[in-house]
Amino acid sequence: MSDYFHPYRDAEFILEQLVNFDELSQQLNLDGVNQELASAVISEAGRFASEVLAPLNSVGDQQGAMLNEQGVQQTPGFAEAYQQFAEAGWTSLTAEEEFGGQQLPQVLGTAVNEIWHSANMAFALCPMLSQGAIEALCAHGSEKLQQQYLEQLISGRWTGTMNLTEPNAGSDLAAVSTKAVAEGDHYRISGQKIFITWGDHQMTDNIVHLVLARLPDAPAGVKGISLFVVPKFLLDENGEPAEMNDVRCVSLEHKLGIHGSPTCVLSFGDEGGAIGYLVGEPNRGLMYMFTMMNSARQSVGLQGLSISERAYQQGLTYARERTQGRRADGSAKPIIEYPDVRRMLLTLKTGSEAMRALALVASAELDRAQIAGDAEQAKTHQLRAELMTPIVKGWMTEFAQELTSLNVQIHGGMGFIEETGAAQHFRDARILPIYEGTTGIQALDLIGRKLQMDQGESYRSLLAELTQTARQLETGSDPRLAKIGRKLLKAIDAASSALRKILEEGNDRAELNAGICVHFLMLSGFLVGGGLLGQAAVAAAQLQRQAEESGQALDPLWDSKISSAEFFAVQLLPRVGYLAEICASESLSAMAGEDCFEQ
Amino acid sequence: MSDYFHPYRDAEFILEQLVNFDELSQQLNLDGVNQELASAVISEAGRFASEVLAPLNSVGDQQGAMLNEQGVQQTPGFAEAYQQFAEAGWTSLTAEEEFGGQQLPQVLGTAVNEIWHSANMAFALCPMLSQGAIEALCAHGSEKLQQQYLEQLISGRWTGTMNLTEPNAGSDLAAVSTKAVAEGDHYRISGQKIFITWGDHQMTDNIVHLVLARLPDAPAGVKGISLFVVPKFLLDENGEPAEMNDVRCVSLEHKLGIHGSPTCVLSFGDEGGAIGYLVGEPNRGLMYMFTMMNSARQSVGLQGLSISERAYQQGLTYARERTQGRRADGSAKPIIEYPDVRRMLLTLKTGSEAMRALALVASAELDRAQIAGDAEQAKTHQLRAELMTPIVKGWMTEFAQELTSLNVQIHGGMGFIEETGAAQHFRDARILPIYEGTTGIQALDLIGRKLQMDQGESYRSLLAELTQTARQLETGSDPRLAKIGRKLLKAIDAASSALRKILEEGNDRAELNAGICVHFLMLSGFLVGGGLLGQAAVAAAQLQRQAEESGQALDPLWDSKISSAEFFAVQLLPRVGYLAEICASESLSAMAGEDCFEQ
Repeated sequence: MSDYFHPYRDAEFILEQLVNFDELSQQLNLDGVNQELASAVISEAGRFASEVLAPLNSVGDQQGAMLNEQGVQQTPGFAEAYQQFAEAGWTSLTAEEEFGGQQLPQVLGTAVNEIWHSANMAFALCPMLSQGAIEALCAHGSEKLQQQYLEQLISGRWTGTMNLTEPNAGSDLAAVSTKAVAEGDHYRISGQKIFITWGDHQMTDNIVHLVLARLPDAPAGVKGISLFVVPKFLLDENGEPAEMNDVRCVSLEHKLGIHGSPTCVLSFGDEGGAIGYLVGEPNRGLMYMFTMMNSARQSVGLQGLSISERAYQQGLTYARERTQGRRADGSAKPIIEYPDVRRMLLTLKTGSEAMRALALVASAELDRAQIAGDAEQAKTHQLRAELMTPIVKGWMTEFAQELTSLNVQIHGGMGFIEETGAAQHFRDARILPIYEGTTGIQALDLIGRKLQMDQGESYRSLLAELTQTARQLETGSDPRLAKIGRKLLKAIDAASSALRKILEEGNDRAELNAGICVHFLMLSGFLVGGGLLGQAAVAAAQLQRQAEESGQALDPLWDSKISSAEFFAVQLLPRVGYLAEICASESLSAMAGEDCFEQ
Repeated sequence: MSDYFHPYRDAEFILEQLVNFDELSQQLNLDGVNQELASAVISEAGRFASEVLAPLNSVGDQQGAMLNEQGVQQTPGFAEAYQQFAEAGWTSLTAEEEFGGQQLPQVLGTAVNEIWHSANMAFALCPMLSQGAIEALCAHGSEKLQQQYLEQLISGRWTGTMNLTEPNAGSDLAAVSTKAVAEGDHYRISGQKIFITWGDHQMTDNIVHLVLARLPDAPAGVKGISLFVVPKFLLDENGEPAEMNDVRCVSLEHKLGIHGSPTCVLSFGDEGGAIGYLVGEPNRGLMYMFTMMNSARQSVGLQGLSISERAYQQGLTYARERTQGRRADGSAKPIIEYPDVRRMLLTLKTGSEAMRALALVASAELDRAQIAGDAEQAKTHQLRAELMTPIVKGWMTEFAQELTSLNVQIHGGMGFIEETGAAQHFRDARILPIYEGTTGIQALDLIGRKLQMDQGESYRSLLAELTQTARQLETGSDPRLAKIGRKLLKAIDAASSALRKILEEGNDRAELNAGICVHFLMLSGFLVGGGLLGQAAVAAAQLQRQAEESGQALDPLWDSKISSAEFFAVQLLPRVGYLAEICASESLSAMAGEDCFEQ
């Protein structure tokens, strides 16, 4: 158990200095949306999260969701918290105004979502999944479906789910076998879906399932999958939930973590077929899913940051309170004074800051891709967002494994005791590199799709930007900044070599790339994370200079941002070099054949 | 849930080719102990573990030990398994003949202990702790104490525990405050000990607690701690357990893993003082603990191998059975055919093999340090064992975190579901870098004691040996071996630079070293692990040549050992370079001051 406080000043700094939030809001024609509003929203979200959601986090772990004859019963307290959450308008932040949304930029939604997942990841998964349903209906639903479901989802009166996975269709959705048969204006859906997050609960009057299924005449594989809306309760003529649909939760998974989030096996059509409504056109379901993929995957990547930040706060508190040994003056020595404990804490701190910078910058690219008027510019931002998405999802969720584990380590023996709460973050985090596409899937997306679609052009332009930052750092007079610049240049060099190797043709490079893709993804994360911290250091140093020149007080945050960039550059950026070395491998002969697994 | 099979052929190969078991046994004057016997013992242990212990592993996880008014009730089935284990003679393998032991070499004990911990780590902790008690009494107990307790512990009729930690004395044992007051021929012990593994159970008639406590007139700090034997039941005149002593388990920890192993809070002296007997001389208790430290720490390091091997076996089985997507011919594709899954599996496989080589070689150094006759030689082996111990404990337990996590990842969504069993290994493993001295403590031992006591001489001699291996590999005609040699030489170079930096004087190097010590420890592990796999590859290639020359059949194990060394050299050895880069840091300015944790 630990308290949670949102580190909103860092988010504020990133929005102002790296995202340029005011300019973004103007480009999006959002009157009255500016940095000040953003800070107020974040601050209020932080308060709500600390007071209402965070205290329920360990309750959810210990009293996870249960299934009985009335369906899934969520953790005690969750329903009341959800009620408050929806009433305060948190479900509608980034949704379209037309359906009652507040239409704030995605990047602000991201800054706020960080907070929910830090405070209570199991709880926050529920509105996160609703968000997916909202986006799918906004983008692809008929006017009628939008009218029936969107406002209710956006207001938080109902929640939404995404039904993709089946026992034999995990990473490979081509194998989806749930059936949909036309019947008048609707379809009859039958089949079993697994791993359905918040697939059932009693917090709202209705649940809107979005379900991938196959029409009888559909082509085989990915091009024969359609998307349906299947409400838990069918709507009456007033649009209110009435008769129960033919869908039920038949079991709950007993999981390593996120116990507060019910993971359901949903059975559709045990009594003749659940009634569903086609979203968009037939056989385009998987394509619709892909259009939402960037924001969905970035949302999961963000959870990596959230849980790491929470772990950092807990580790910091413990290391300040726990004493072992004596100081030179004989007084009890808090373990934070031991260099190795500081190393662990600073890895958590700077790792979280690097992830926060990446999450917000990547999310802002999704906003910028929506800026009307300049198609060329919008496309550039879209490509950048596409490139960053697998890095956000893959790197941040993998890095979160290391960071939540470091928090356990800082706690020593107490870290292994469940009551301490460090173990919960470690357990909860373990799902992140798995759901919404495993790290391997993200890495193949990066190396097989994103790099190939423009032969590395977007990646090279990212490297060029980072090089500019590195030169700024390196050529200044401040030795700390210069050191960061040198480390960053070295890492960029290594990444460039790896990129060239990966883009080489022939030489079985496709197979080779598939074998090293996760290394390239991780390399990219450490590089971009370190680069963004470097950018933050440049901005901080400039603010320091300006303040000194005008005789204003120095904000200690500025020096802290420079220290963070320095620590990350010295302790974490060097990983880019060794990962690049592996990526440059000429052969995977050691991985060939089934034999290599025999003795 | 998964089956377990001991990979005894790899252990056999290492004992024969790297340890030179026959020669070692001769040097130890052990008649009739040879490679053939070792293989038979390992094989029989593997059988017992697969049949009796492994099936109880998930039972222990789900039905962990419970505390009731009669004391700690162990997992159902454990008592019967323990009975069989003791009756088969497994508790007496390496103990002295004088007290009924079989006096086999430590290294064979290590090979066998790997098996127990793979099969059921929670169970195997019980005999492991008894082993500590046996060693303490053998080395430091009076004749009377030895007669009363040793034979019973060695036969497994009773078990032993180690009582060190207190709520305020964890890594810092100087703070031990449990009291011991003389009363006739014995002492009255009072105080509370925490984290006592197998501190109570009903599997045997008695439990022999070894307890650190402080005499009334003892000096403060580490030089005032004495060691006592405190039996659960006092012995009658026939040496049989009779009256209950004043010690009880007052609570059990609710832990992240190893649920089958009761972790007790033991209260001594609630009713006037538990009766205890001094071991050795007063105030030398911590020193006695230190004499057992190498074997105790190596035993925990070994658990890192055991759990990784078990995770590997489970991942391999799953990856062969689970299909996703289609092969070119349209048939279902087992996920083992995807390069990224192969990368994960090979990391598990070669990581386990590297750890096995290190565990056995390091353990054999403990045996060699006992070889009588040549004091100089014995000292060299003692120093090598001392150097390797923190690497075995620190690196193997940290690496096990990564490897057990990879097994979860290979399982995808199923890995997060408890019934699969992958999560249990991941949870169980998490204690390993914490107990018996955290990784930070190991790293300080390596860098602050082991390197300083001979100014790096032992480490340099290790590097020289590895260089010899690398040259053998590099200069041969086989391109695979040459590649391994090149990678190894590069790693040795990087390690040498790091070592030089660490041994530099002045420049606040002590503080700096304390900040990078864990990196140096991890570097050492990957280097020595890769080097030993390289040695194994040299030996395997030689066996291949000999077989070819004499027209004999090739053992597929030989090629597998070369492949393992190659994979490790390409994918894991490069970590040495980046870790060395961090170790060579000139300053830790980013870690200075309390400020760096403020925003």
